[in-house]
Amino acid sequence: MTPSPVTQRATPPEVLARCRDLVRPALVRAVRRLHPWHAEMAAFSLGWNAADGTPVPGSQGKGLRQALALLGTEAAGAPAREGVVGAVAVELIHVFSLIHDDIMDGDETRRQRATAWKAYGTGPAVLAGDALFAAAVQTLAEAPGPHGAAAVRLLAGTLTELVRGQADDLLFESRPWTGPEAVRPHEYRWMAEHKTGALLGCAAGLGAVLAGAPATTAEALTRAGRHLGVAFQAVDDLLGIWGDPEVTGKPVHNDLRRLKKTYPVLAALTADDPAARRLAALLDTGIPLDDTTARRAAGLVEEAGGRRAVVTEAQQQLEQARRSLEDVPLAPAALGEILGLLPFVVDRTG
Amino acid sequence: MTPSPVTQRATPPEVLARCRDLVRPALVRAVRRLHPWHAEMAAFSLGWNAADGTPVPGSQGKGLRQALALLGTEAAGAPAREGVVGAVAVELIHVFSLIHDDIMDGDETRRQRATAWKAYGTGPAVLAGDALFAAAVQTLAEAPGPHGAAAVRLLAGTLTELVRGQADDLLFESRPWTGPEAVRPHEYRWMAEHKTGALLGCAAGLGAVLAGAPATTAEALTRAGRHLGVAFQAVDDLLGIWGDPEVTGKPVHNDLRRLKKTYPVLAALTADDPAARRLAALLDTGIPLDDTTARRAAGLVEEAGGRRAVVTEAQQQLEQARRSLEDVPLAPAALGEILGLLPFVVDRTG
Repeated sequence: MTPSPVTQRATPPEVLARCRDLVRPALVRAVRRLHPWHAEMAAFSLGWNAADGTPVPGSQGKGLRQALALLGTEAAGAPAREGVVGAVAVELIHVFSLIHDDIMDGDETRRQRATAWKAYGTGPAVLAGDALFAAAVQTLAEAPGPHGAAAVRLLAGTLTELVRGQADDLLFESRPWTGPEAVRPHEYRWMAEHKTGALLGCAAGLGAVLAGAPATTAEALTRAGRHLGVAFQAVDDLLGIWGDPEVTGKPVHNDLRRLKKTYPVLAALTADDPAARRLAALLDTGIPLDDTTARRAAGLVEEAGGRRAVVTEAQQQLEQARRSLEDVPLAPAALGEILGLLPFVVDRTG
Repeated sequence: MTPSPVTQRATPPEVLARCRDLVRPALVRAVRRLHPWHAEMAAFSLGWNAADGTPVPGSQGKGLRQALALLGTEAAGAPAREGVVGAVAVELIHVFSLIHDDIMDGDETRRQRATAWKAYGTGPAVLAGDALFAAAVQTLAEAPGPHGAAAVRLLAGTLTELVRGQADDLLFESRPWTGPEAVRPHEYRWMAEHKTGALLGCAAGLGAVLAGAPATTAEALTRAGRHLGVAFQAVDDLLGIWGDPEVTGKPVHNDLRRLKKTYPVLAALTADDPAARRLAALLDTGIPLDDTTARRAAGLVEEAGGRRAVVTEAQQQLEQARRSLEDVPLAPAALGEILGLLPFVVDRTG
């Protein structure tokens, strides 16, 4: 990639790559500090290694959370290196949550590879997740400088929100699609804010906390990250139904086949129209959908306005994220890069 | 129970009961802060409730870890209430580790009841453990007073040791009983120090840290707790073979039947005598032992000196715990109560 001239703003992929490069050495050190068995499972789950331990070049994730941490630090006026420890902590927590969530959801593949529990067994995967969780807390607790305690406090609060969101998501599965016990869109949004928004908010907020920013600055960045997280989850849900299998690595209409309660479907079911009623009838049977029925259900979700509602929701969340950032003085270059990341996250295809 | 007169030292059961009473309200508050689903699983795992949510009076554990935390605070010259937050954190971590370890070990019963994963399912139990882990960190991170950051640092280091010890314990299962790859007693002791010693040491050390004690005092209490932990694990291993099923709630010779690598067996196998060789031949088949064979194996462990070696190890660890406490000035009453707990832990029958 040709570096863009300094006078021109870096593109979102360039921003993400710069942040990954800054974080990578510290993240590698944190992983190397783990028990060798856990280091192996962590490297696998981070996409660095295959299950047999051989390196897989270039297959890492986007690194959105670590980027938000560093940009949070820069936005608060400190050099990015002061936020690296926060970036490492949120990446470790992200991988912890992927490993444990895949166990709970019974997901066997992620990014076109086996999930950790599938590759290493459930018990070892539970423990590897615990090790990453512990390493994240330790990374912040032992951070040099005066802001470690505040950083741990923010992370700890985030972790309790994260498990709360995951609990609600699991409990949604056993609730009905219709009737008084049905999951309502606002409950789903609440869950998404905990499950996905909390960690993105924490990332941006941690960056500011580690820069020694005033509480109002850290809070504004946290808020922006949370809104971005809800938008991110909304897009995830759209991709779970209409995503290109070549890009997502999952079958088309995957979430519908599995009767997963996602935002577009829940939004569609609130419509008072024939498509919503036909959709409810398909889902209420509780039987996983075959190809034809899943395609039909996807059409009904769209017809009942579920797709449109979620696109609108994602745009509104982005708008709220932008507005949160207007509340406080931030370094213009970093602010520009954060604002550039927002639509990039929402316009992604996988 | 009649309170003992102030001139007479409280018995270990009285000390444990006093500490439980002091910690209970804060522990109940911490559990109530959890997601209701996790609060239910936590109350079940703490022995407070049955799986259907009904209270089970008087079935709680001894509360050794919470007692060590409060006694650590008192030994460092502060009132016990200043250590309550540490006691809550270590109890939450203890329950987290029981829930996750039972999943990894495939254990279906604990204290004559179903384990959490057996009662609620693996996924929910993984998440309940995560929630307790997060709550423990949050409890300390938000502790009032100036010592929260140091307390979190101690807990974070302990958590990484805990998962490291559990990893070694799991990996021992796939290593042979004999030959160059066999698990050696010193490796087992190392594992036990991480898996069991670290949290008991953390409990006592946290108490001192929260009292604002000098580092040398906190370190001495931590060291004492770690030695006590290794002794505790040694006794656990003795009970796993020779414990009374009526008291332990597990079948006699349970660990031998399951071919679990425990200290008495590993110690016995290092003996250069016929009993050790006959024992090795029984175990090397890799087939779980039936009643008769398990009884015979237990006899061979004893004959080869495995039982004696572990009793000696436990006594030596207690002696080292006592000596650690001589290194620093401690409040006499609390020191006396800690010293009283040491043999109580080792002489237990279940």
